[in-house]
Amino acid sequence: MGIPKETDMEIKVGGSSRTAKERPKGALLVKNLYLSCDPYMRGRMRQFHDSYIPPFVPGSVIEGFGVSRVVHSDNPNFKTGDIVTGMTGWEEYSLIQEPQRLRKIQQDDDIPLSYYVGLLGALPEMGTSCCFNGWIGAHGLLTTDVYRQGRTHDLNLGTAYAGFYLLMPDFYEVCSPNKGDCVFVSAASGAVGQLVGQLAKLHGCYVVGSAGTDQKVDLVKNKFGFDEAFNYKEEPDLDAALKRYFPQGIDIYFDNVGGAMLDAALGNMRVHGRIAICGMVSEQNLFKPQGIHNLFHLISKRVTMRGFLQSDYLHLLPRFLEDVISYYKQGKIVYIEDMSRGLESAPAALAGLYSGKNVGKQVVCVARD
Amino acid sequence: MGIPKETDMEIKVGGSSRTAKERPKGALLVKNLYLSCDPYMRGRMRQFHDSYIPPFVPGSVIEGFGVSRVVHSDNPNFKTGDIVTGMTGWEEYSLIQEPQRLRKIQQDDDIPLSYYVGLLGALPEMGTSCCFNGWIGAHGLLTTDVYRQGRTHDLNLGTAYAGFYLLMPDFYEVCSPNKGDCVFVSAASGAVGQLVGQLAKLHGCYVVGSAGTDQKVDLVKNKFGFDEAFNYKEEPDLDAALKRYFPQGIDIYFDNVGGAMLDAALGNMRVHGRIAICGMVSEQNLFKPQGIHNLFHLISKRVTMRGFLQSDYLHLLPRFLEDVISYYKQGKIVYIEDMSRGLESAPAALAGLYSGKNVGKQVVCVARD
Repeated sequence: MGIPKETDMEIKVGGSSRTAKERPKGALLVKNLYLSCDPYMRGRMRQFHDSYIPPFVPGSVIEGFGVSRVVHSDNPNFKTGDIVTGMTGWEEYSLIQEPQRLRKIQQDDDIPLSYYVGLLGALPEMGTSCCFNGWIGAHGLLTTDVYRQGRTHDLNLGTAYAGFYLLMPDFYEVCSPNKGDCVFVSAASGAVGQLVGQLAKLHGCYVVGSAGTDQKVDLVKNKFGFDEAFNYKEEPDLDAALKRYFPQGIDIYFDNVGGAMLDAALGNMRVHGRIAICGMVSEQNLFKPQGIHNLFHLISKRVTMRGFLQSDYLHLLPRFLEDVISYYKQGKIVYIEDMSRGLESAPAALAGLYSGKNVGKQVVCVARD
Repeated sequence: MGIPKETDMEIKVGGSSRTAKERPKGALLVKNLYLSCDPYMRGRMRQFHDSYIPPFVPGSVIEGFGVSRVVHSDNPNFKTGDIVTGMTGWEEYSLIQEPQRLRKIQQDDDIPLSYYVGLLGALPEMGTSCCFNGWIGAHGLLTTDVYRQGRTHDLNLGTAYAGFYLLMPDFYEVCSPNKGDCVFVSAASGAVGQLVGQLAKLHGCYVVGSAGTDQKVDLVKNKFGFDEAFNYKEEPDLDAALKRYFPQGIDIYFDNVGGAMLDAALGNMRVHGRIAICGMVSEQNLFKPQGIHNLFHLISKRVTMRGFLQSDYLHLLPRFLEDVISYYKQGKIVYIEDMSRGLESAPAALAGLYSGKNVGKQVVCVARD
């Protein structure tokens, strides 16, 4: 059903057009250290004109969030050796034409650099200048066969749409968590879920997570400290599972998956419940997304459901970073990464996201420094 | 598909248990003048334990919103001749055991009394004391055959769930309309839609409505003054219809119907759009509601979707009444009722709602005074 496969991407050796000799004024050349693998990237593998982020161009280097080191700067705001984070290419070296979109990182021995695409990740800006013209595929979702046609350069994918979901400073904005609230988090061991659950616990909420393997369930309960967790693949009836963990209903559902889990949660919301729609990984590979049948509960329970993108909440980023770094240094939160080594491991790492192979935030280490 | 039919109800002549001789202390005996026919009533014709309003009891008089005249009072707060509005029975006379749930109406020659279940309708309180025990049907939605079993008294229906949607003082609360916003209203000639659209126009919005007959479309455009209206039954592609009327997208969708129209609207929302879920009449008669497939737009467009009940907004009622009465008296808004005459016309009037037979708010006039 359109799940990206390792073979949909290709490693190419040789100069890419993005690291061309003629550098535009003010550009940076960076060495990429860590690349982020995120479910939204599947969305960019199909053509979808109406999205907030453009499709990938078949035949071009994949774009993604990363941590990089400046190796040459034509820009007065950056110098060689600076560590930066933002949109970069899935390649060893990238030419960054709009360095104002990057954020400089102040290195801290206690914070792994890779955390800047995970625990502390936030894009400084999203915008149309990432846009590529020349899309060559058909409309709508593309089959694997179609989007494989575009393979020519470096590490390539074919196609695009998006549902960006890195870490969310807006959990508080959207969900207004109160002490004692009953919170449900799906994909609870993932890049976002693990942090949301821990922050909710720090707020005094009762927190239950779902995950897709017993190993992840164990992690959610024993490492991340959720009150409860369950393996949704072993639950024949998701509605019954939620009723077991939330006999009084759910105040906040932080939805990372959509589909059947969202439907089950809708049927178990409490009056004035809040649903934050952060991602719909279960839908991203489907030609026709699964139907949601329980929306009438929005009325009887007066539920608010909101989709959001972190890019709307960048004003909260400084506070978010301060809080989370402080919690992390005090040992009040932990963060689990699934690190794969080498650019050549990237296709498998990205593809693994869609079958739940990763445990924690999936990162590719291209180089250590 | 479970649409209530006239024959699912029965008119019985004779004393009902609700007008029994032994009146509880503080009770009122009222003569019912106007009864409100509302789509949510279908919901009360099935068993649904988790709703905010209990099912009807097969064999009992139908409950509904009405305007009545006090004919005997054992309560110091009401006197004979007072006009009241609130929950009453679908019968000529009702014994009201909890008069504190009624609201007294100050008569005004310029305002038809029936408007108090329409234009100016609002329940003073919803609560568990409407609750009846003794439900005798099966779980879930019931077929017509099942809920017909209970016919014994007065005007009867069998079963229940709810999606209450009379007039909403909370349009402003939920939708935050701004001048110039593009507003779409479904069921635009109905009890709620006609008022929502007119209020949005008064706020300086661009307003488009959908309705199910050309006569209603004409009413929406020429009587209620919407900018545009279309007959959804003549649109083979709802998405294309919305794109035609909203080339820049929809800021506010006031949803009275759910189903395919909601799905089409989701695909046409603008960034930071708001969807007020007021009713899902298209879903109420379905055993399995139609699936909604476009929820991923909630993310990319950062849309907020909220279900609501007027009972949460009663603090706004005085302001609402003041504003709407003033608009009405100034001729800035109009209100269309579909009045049927006599209690014996009530079953057909209620059944007609679900096939869109009514034009405007459906009311039954039991007596003029």
